[in-house]
This record gives sequence, C-alpha cells and structure tokens, in this order.
Amino acid sequence: MSKKTEFLYLSEPDLINVGVLDIKNSVEVAEDVFKLLSKGDYLMGGSNANSHGMGIVFPKTSPFPNMPVAGPDRRFVAMPAYLGGEYDICGNKWYGSNAENKQKGLPRSVLTLMLNDKDTGEPLSLMSANLISASRTGAIPGVATKYLAKSDSAVCAVIGCGPINQVCFEAIASQAANLNKAIFYNRSIEKAQQLAKWCTDELGIDGVVSTNLEETIRQADIITIAVSRTAPLNLENSWFKEGALILFSGPGSADEDFWKNNKIIYDNYKLHEAYVEEAIQSGDKQAYYNGVIGGPIYKLIDEGKIASLKDSTSMGEIILGEKQGRVSDSEKIIFVSCGMAVFDVALGFNLYQKALENRVGQNLLLWESSLQS
Amino acid sequence: MSKKTEFLYLSEPDLINVGVLDIKNSVEVAEDVFKLLSKGDYLMGGSNANSHGMGIVFPKTSPFPNMPVAGPDRRFVAMPAYLGGEYDICGNKWYGSNAENKQKGLPRSVLTLMLNDKDTGEPLSLMSANLISASRTGAIPGVATKYLAKSDSAVCAVIGCGPINQVCFEAIASQAANLNKAIFYNRSIEKAQQLAKWCTDELGIDGVVSTNLEETIRQADIITIAVSRTAPLNLENSWFKEGALILFSGPGSADEDFWKNNKIIYDNYKLHEAYVEEAIQSGDKQAYYNGVIGGPIYKLIDEGKIASLKDSTSMGEIILGEKQGRVSDSEKIIFVSCGMAVFDVALGFNLYQKALENRVGQNLLLWESSLQS
Repeated sequence: MSKKTEFLYLSEPDLINVGVLDIKNSVEVAEDVFKLLSKGDYLMGGSNANSHGMGIVFPKTSPFPNMPVAGPDRRFVAMPAYLGGEYDICGNKWYGSNAENKQKGLPRSVLTLMLNDKDTGEPLSLMSANLISASRTGAIPGVATKYLAKSDSAVCAVIGCGPINQVCFEAIASQAANLNKAIFYNRSIEKAQQLAKWCTDELGIDGVVSTNLEETIRQADIITIAVSRTAPLNLENSWFKEGALILFSGPGSADEDFWKNNKIIYDNYKLHEAYVEEAIQSGDKQAYYNGVIGGPIYKLIDEGKIASLKDSTSMGEIILGEKQGRVSDSEKIIFVSCGMAVFDVALGFNLYQKALENRVGQNLLLWESSLQS
Repeated sequence: MSKKTEFLYLSEPDLINVGVLDIKNSVEVAEDVFKLLSKGDYLMGGSNANSHGMGIVFPKTSPFPNMPVAGPDRRFVAMPAYLGGEYDICGNKWYGSNAENKQKGLPRSVLTLMLNDKDTGEPLSLMSANLISASRTGAIPGVATKYLAKSDSAVCAVIGCGPINQVCFEAIASQAANLNKAIFYNRSIEKAQQLAKWCTDELGIDGVVSTNLEETIRQADIITIAVSRTAPLNLENSWFKEGALILFSGPGSADEDFWKNNKIIYDNYKLHEAYVEEAIQSGDKQAYYNGVIGGPIYKLIDEGKIASLKDSTSMGEIILGEKQGRVSDSEKIIFVSCGMAVFDVALGFNLYQKALENRVGQNLLLWESSLQS
C-alpha cells in the first residue's frame, strides 16, 4: 500500500486573492488564537513547548570570509507550532531577515510558512508568508484595541511607519469605532507622509505627520509602536495621556516609571517565561534581553520592581472573562506582543481553507508513491 | 526599486532525476561536510550554533482530544543551518514523523528542505527531502567506512532493514572494495529477505538473512546499525570481532564494556555537547538521553567512565589529517552519527545545482514585487 502526496503552493498574489489583506478576518483569527493560548490548546518548540523558535545566530566576526556575520536585523529563524481548536494543525514558519534587503528592493524579512498534517507530517500547503506574518502581527494589537482601548479613543499615534505598523494601524482602526485622527511618526518622513495620505484617502481617518515623538504621544489615546531595533525609542511615562493604550509590536525602551506604574498585559506570559529561560541558557542574559521586545520588562522583574510573569495577565484570559482587562478610563495599559508561530499557523490555515474552496494556488507533487513506503 | 522572487520546486521524482540515489556523489558531499565541520565553517541552530534542531514535543497525555500525544517516533523537528565552503548556503529541514505512517502507505517521516540565499533570506529551492535525508544519512557511514574500516573488510552486518540502513549499506559497499558478503537482520524477516535479494541481484554482493543477532555480529567486519527506537538492541562487547567497525546511525544499547573498551569516533563532538546541554536544560536529563543516539555514551561520560566529548575525535579531524583514525587492524572502532542539518543542506545544494544545469523542477513565484518593498 502506498500513497500519493500532493500539497498546495500559495504565492503572495494567491494569498491576496484569498483575503490575507482582510484585516477584520485576521483579527477574528487572532482572537481565536488568544483563547486557545489561554486554554493551553497549543504547542510550540522546545522542551517548554513555548519557545518563539530556533534561530541561526550569526557571529560578530568570522575567520571564514563568506560566513554571514551579525548585522542589523540579520538572522534566520524556524518557528514550529501545533494549534488546536478548529485549526488542529502543525506548521513551521521559516524566515531570513537582513536590514540591507531594502537596498535590493526586497522586504527586510523574507518568510515562508509550511502547514503539515498533524498525524502524518505530510505537507498540506507551502505559502509565501510575508503578508500572513504582517497581517497576524497587525491583527494582535487589533484584538488588544477591541478589549483594552477606552471606547472613546479618538487619536492614534503610529510610531514607526514600516509595513508591520501599517497593518497594526489598520487593525486598530477596524476595532476603534471613534477614531478620527492618526499621527504618523517615522525616522524617514517620506514613509510617514505616505501612510498619512493612505490613512486619509483609504480609511477616511484624518492622517497627519509629526517629527516630534513626545508631542505625538501626548495627543494619543492609542499608541502603536513597531520600530526597528536599529532605531530605538526612549519613551517617558509623563508623555502618555491618562487612559492611553500603548501597544508594542516591536522593541521600545522607556523610563522605569513607564513599566512600573502602568498595567502590563502580555500576549501570552508563557512565551515570555520561555524567553527568560532562553536568555539564562544563552550565557549572557543581558545581551539576550537587549534583543527581545520584552527585555526591558524582564530586567525589572529580575530586580523585583514589577510583578513576575506568572502573576501577570495574558490577553486570552481577558477574552475568556477569567481576568479583568481595563478597569477604569484613567489607567494606562501597556500591551506587549512578541510574535508566536501559532498566529501564523492559524491565519495560514484559515487562508488555506479559502484557497481550497476557491481553487486558488498550484498543486505540487511530493511523490506519486514514496520510494521509502 | 523592487525585485521579483522565484524559487525552484523539486519533487521526489525530480530529485531521482538529478541523482539523489547516486550514493558515491552523496559520500563525496558528506566528506566535504565533515571537513567544513572540523574547520568550523558552519552554523546550526541555538545559542551554541550546534543544535540538532527544534522539535514540537508532544505530551504524554492531553486534556484536548485532538492534540497529538507522544507515540513511537512521533515528533516534528525544524533543523536550520548555514554551511560554508563551496556551499555557502542557508537552509532548513522540516519534518514530521510517526511510526503509524507505515499503515497509511507513507514513510515513517515526511521531510522537506528549503534552501535560502544566505544574505537576503529569499527561498532558492524547496525540495522533497525523504531521499535527500536518507542519502546523506547513508553517506555518513560510507565516509566512516572509507577512513575507518580495515582494508580487508569482507563481511557486513546490516542490523535493521529500513530505508535508511539500505542506503547506509549501499554507501558502505561503495567504499569497501573487498566486501563479499552481507548479513541482513531485522525484526520482520520479510524486509531482511527483500534487502538480501536486492544486495545479491543489484550490488553483486552475496546477501543472506539471519534471525540471530549475536551470530550475525560475530561474523562481521563492518556492522551498520539503524533500528527504530521502538526495537532496541542489547549488544554485548564480546560478540564483536577484532578490528570491527561499528557504525551507529540509530540508537542501540550495549554493555558498558562495549563503550569503555573500544575507540569511539563522533560525527562532530560539538553536536553531542549541544545534546548534553539540551538534556540538562530539559529538566530530565535521563529521559532526554533515552531519546537520543548518544544517550548511553553521555551517561558513561557523566559517570567518568569514558573520555569527555571535548577530548574525543571527530570524523573531520581524521579526514583533515589532524587526528589519527584506525591505528591497528585489531582495534574495534565505534562511529556515532546523529544527523545534522548541514548534511541535508549540502546534499540539497549539490542537487539543486544539478537541477539548474539540467532544467529540472518547477519554478514557483513568491512575488512579482513584494507588497512590502
């Protein structure tokens, strides 16, 4: 007995065709994932089943002239996951990243996602994953906005105007019914101007540009932060309005008051526990902390200045009604999201189903009959 | 400026077409890899850059009815790597494995390999990787035979008759000029009979079947061991001939004398150091040891009964002439090989080059121009 195995290839145009840019769909999928995370119906990599993934870490220098060396945003990462619920699927996101890609007409990261049958391991679909990854990353602050923003939130600050924060903002706008203004702040003003125009023209929300970080933040009810590690921010707690929701989808440094005096809600505290474990195992905890979004928080937890991860709140617990989210219109809430393979696998599976229904994509033969069966 | 990205898909038939079954080619590639390993011109996953990979570890039980639970050979693993030298390429092997696949007409593991540009991360080729993985796994004992077997080795024992050991034997036979007999031993005799017939008919070497493990081993100059973890062996040192070369490509347990009194040579001692690190990090060192090929050895090293890994010899050092391999026709040598992503990446790259030259495979579009560029 032997079995033919085929799988479906979906290019970036195919994925656009089946709705990867439909941000409301992505927010719904992300909300599902948060619930499954808090129920525990998932597995990721590593012995703690909560690892972000496994990277190839390039050395600072190398005696081998061809070996890649450490550089801005330069890495390869494999991110395996199983997700349960209606998804019930295994997969792996795999990407390479390099800040220098921009000069070659390529996005900073180039990503693919493979979905596999959870029982046999057979590939089900290989997908171009740049838009999947951007859409799921953007959808996460969309979910946070739905559950944590004040209902009268009117002004959003967009700190960092790359493709990720564009999607973050789109997701936020889809969930904040009273939003009427967006302020775009970016190292290069041209990209801020582009997004402001897009915001005004496409979303019907007044889009403006600012070159002053403090003034931008002082006006905002919702702040979405997704800047490169190569352009760090130095935020001050005093800049933020009462009732603000501050959404981190990328790194950001701030004064101690910021982290100590505001409520911190995590995407999934277990992921952050895994990051801390990996930091310890790396042999240079501080260097590891410097490379991850939660780094500034873990440092303060280690110093006993803020609550431990296990005593913290994850988004899914709020959605499931197990813990409280916002309790007043005055409290400031920080939401920290680091990216988990389960979100890619979920959105990939959702779009794969749509591709099957609509006969989109290209069937690839793995084998007519495996030579090994 | 934006850039079109395409990559090449190679199915199992495509790979057969470009020579994945040419075991002499695979042995040459594996020899290259051993040299690069000992020079240090490679990177694998993890902070030690020597990790085997990152798996999804299924729990023994789960409150979620759909979640896969631990079972024989059941896992998913991502194996990222960079390899230098003439290869100069990044890639990731990703596979799911399940002993129950056999009943579905599928091989136990289903594997794919992605090769990527080391600088941009763009995919270069996705490949069906079952035959690549088998061929590189088989090629490794082929290299060991070339460098470590007595030149008059006449009899080979093949312990375990699955697809992996078939390729191991083929590679051994390609390097042992005086081999004239092979004895096939397997839990199910039918598969042993099939291989014995194939050996006689296709390789022109007298192939016979045995159901007695001890008698099989007593006759052999070269012993290749690749059995499933579900059918453990209990080998005794006294069974092995003087001058024997014992090649482990899968797990095997033996008495203490076996490990203590024979020379052990590793594929790459740094990989084994990484396994020991990961065993410690897992929180249950012995359970981790039980799941890896080198487990019985690491235990004896921990107990101070055999030499530490850093004082040991790796295959590449022998090929480069930095350390001695066999020093007498009487010593028994154990060679332990655990599988490293660099071997997959190397053979995949070698076959990808041949596919480009011969216009084999299917071009896939990632994007005409990335929406994010």
